[in-house]
Amino acid sequence: MPQPEMTREDFAARDAADPLAPFRAEFELPEGVIYLDGNSLGPLPRIARERVAACVSEEWGNGLIRSWNDAGWINLPARVGDKIGALIGAEPDSVVAADSTSVNLFKCLSAALALRPGRTVIVSEKSNFPTDLYMAEGLSALLGGRHELRLIEDPSELPGALTDEVAVLMLTHVNYRTGYMHDMKAVTAAAHEAGALTLWDLAHSAGAVPVDLAIANADFAVGCGYKYLNGGPGAPAFLYVAPRHQQDATQPLTGWFSHKAPFAFDHRFAPTDGIGKFLCGTPPVLAMTALDAAMDIWARADMNAVREKSVSLTESFITLVEKRCAGLGLTLASPRAAAQRGSQISFAHESGYPVMQALIDRGVIGDFRAPDLLRFGFTPLYTRFTDVWDAVEHLRDILETGAWDRPEFHARATVT
Amino acid sequence: MPQPEMTREDFAARDAADPLAPFRAEFELPEGVIYLDGNSLGPLPRIARERVAACVSEEWGNGLIRSWNDAGWINLPARVGDKIGALIGAEPDSVVAADSTSVNLFKCLSAALALRPGRTVIVSEKSNFPTDLYMAEGLSALLGGRHELRLIEDPSELPGALTDEVAVLMLTHVNYRTGYMHDMKAVTAAAHEAGALTLWDLAHSAGAVPVDLAIANADFAVGCGYKYLNGGPGAPAFLYVAPRHQQDATQPLTGWFSHKAPFAFDHRFAPTDGIGKFLCGTPPVLAMTALDAAMDIWARADMNAVREKSVSLTESFITLVEKRCAGLGLTLASPRAAAQRGSQISFAHESGYPVMQALIDRGVIGDFRAPDLLRFGFTPLYTRFTDVWDAVEHLRDILETGAWDRPEFHARATVT
Repeated sequence: MPQPEMTREDFAARDAADPLAPFRAEFELPEGVIYLDGNSLGPLPRIARERVAACVSEEWGNGLIRSWNDAGWINLPARVGDKIGALIGAEPDSVVAADSTSVNLFKCLSAALALRPGRTVIVSEKSNFPTDLYMAEGLSALLGGRHELRLIEDPSELPGALTDEVAVLMLTHVNYRTGYMHDMKAVTAAAHEAGALTLWDLAHSAGAVPVDLAIANADFAVGCGYKYLNGGPGAPAFLYVAPRHQQDATQPLTGWFSHKAPFAFDHRFAPTDGIGKFLCGTPPVLAMTALDAAMDIWARADMNAVREKSVSLTESFITLVEKRCAGLGLTLASPRAAAQRGSQISFAHESGYPVMQALIDRGVIGDFRAPDLLRFGFTPLYTRFTDVWDAVEHLRDILETGAWDRPEFHARATVT
Repeated sequence: MPQPEMTREDFAARDAADPLAPFRAEFELPEGVIYLDGNSLGPLPRIARERVAACVSEEWGNGLIRSWNDAGWINLPARVGDKIGALIGAEPDSVVAADSTSVNLFKCLSAALALRPGRTVIVSEKSNFPTDLYMAEGLSALLGGRHELRLIEDPSELPGALTDEVAVLMLTHVNYRTGYMHDMKAVTAAAHEAGALTLWDLAHSAGAVPVDLAIANADFAVGCGYKYLNGGPGAPAFLYVAPRHQQDATQPLTGWFSHKAPFAFDHRFAPTDGIGKFLCGTPPVLAMTALDAAMDIWARADMNAVREKSVSLTESFITLVEKRCAGLGLTLASPRAAAQRGSQISFAHESGYPVMQALIDRGVIGDFRAPDLLRFGFTPLYTRFTDVWDAVEHLRDILETGAWDRPEFHARATVT
């Protein structure tokens, strides 16, 4: 990798040569904002605004109940699921869009544990996104407490943790704080070697890095619709079940949308075949429509090109920060090797919270993760190289001048 | 109750005198449609269209991640919950909007069973809406099969079914097929007398009939946002937990939105106080915004006036059908006594499916429930007395002429 250019003009030249640059016009991005938080909430795709408006006015307003058939609402979970599946290397009919990531994790973890009845340990990381751990705690308690949630502190402990008691290895592919990325294929193979199943959380992977669930031989996966996929705030999540498990897998949230004949209104449950058995209640059509529209942009994006630009953006950001903000109290908290990280970079700073608020005040939007991380997401469909340059210049100025140390930047908001 | 007038002019006069008539203009209702399916999917409130558009363009598009704080997204589940709570006689801070009805039922049933650890029976009705029974089946299996789901065939069996083994009485307040309405207060008292807790499904009650959960001394309740509440297709559902249970109640879907400090990102779960512990994952903001807007209409509606008009509409419908369609094969499947039914009327007909398709083809939209029910919802905020008249005239004509017996009306759609 060549040394990144070190003038703003050089960065502008890279934007001019960027084959992904045209995608930026497909998103609403407010004037004066450098948006480095698409890993938390993706921006509004223009097509999503149009499709939601049409869904509201035409499908709901005019079509009314008829739209379940006429507008194909009934097939949204499968249709959107297949679009997501295409982005993450899933086989057809192995992904559905539904519920929240947390609820989907509950379903998949239940299913995986039931497929390994003699084993009682769930291995995960202490640094996993907390809701995944909370859901595992909740499920474990419901199952009578006979499962142990065993948390490793560092990925290096993984081989030793994969004992023959382990039913499920539950990992987030890309760590939400540091961006550390597991080698999905190698880790899955190690889990299988130990007789365990894998459950991957792709919240910070889908749309961020190339994922190939089928090639990795993954068993279960879940992920988020509102981060890199740009599906809208609180967008429906998704889940994946490998075709080889779909016949035997069962999940406990057996709502009517997982029934083989929901409109027969039989009082006894009978699961539908295939991935549909992992649905539960009525899908949220408006939210699903926004995600559906957003996925149509992804269908035209070359994920390898996205990764290539992502690596360039993150490399440039690290290099620039370390050169231009040297001595200003920032410490890289993400892996230095691009191959070991996703599409986000975190730097620790002892006053991380007010520093991030000062950045946001200037329109450079990243986020803060306790206790001390400034977190920046790089989203090649709409992030420019000049955005990286400008963001670092703001960061440098804020740190050099102490502009972050104002009372209003210390006041904690509800959501950080 | 006086005999309903028997000319269309009389019905038009009742519309002219209807104090609720102005509400109709607040909804989008397509030309040429008589919409008698608001019990399945409420129509589009104009304010919901505006608010969703603003949420998409301004809050998502312009505010981006900042809208979690600045637009109050983070408080949507509680804020919308309180608006729904006001409509169903719930105490403040005892209702949240979240997830689907099925998922909420799972949470509440889990919580209720945990509060009655020595008891092993869940009593419900065989005629309950199937997803409620399916979810109870799924939960029971997850709990190791030590709970029995005991289904009564008729409400008259209730007293005998409430033995000292019963942990939870799980009923839908208004039956989805017949509209039969339980006496919530009396049934709850009987359950409590037997030492059981109650879990009420208000899917066909909220916005349909006056509900007073606090006065009924109900324990738990769930309900639907997309039927009478008009919150949009697949709108978030809601749940209620009586204040007296909130301290001790636990639920297993312990996602990060139920944590006491979700943005501390602690790896151990600790529930928040109060009703918030019944949340799970990130709320669907777009869908929640539509429901939030729809609830602002309900805040201006007098539920007693709604009930009065509902009874008039349903009485008129029954009377007209029985007079004008006499001998045409229709049998009333709803309770004849208004006090025993909700805001919907079903008639059985041996060719119910094609008859309903023929009605829909003429713009009279009700729905069909297997095996033979024509189901019609009456929603006083936008249903006119002349709609009742005109719907019955179409029904009479279709039956008299045999217009329903065309191949296209027999072809079964996915969603009925």
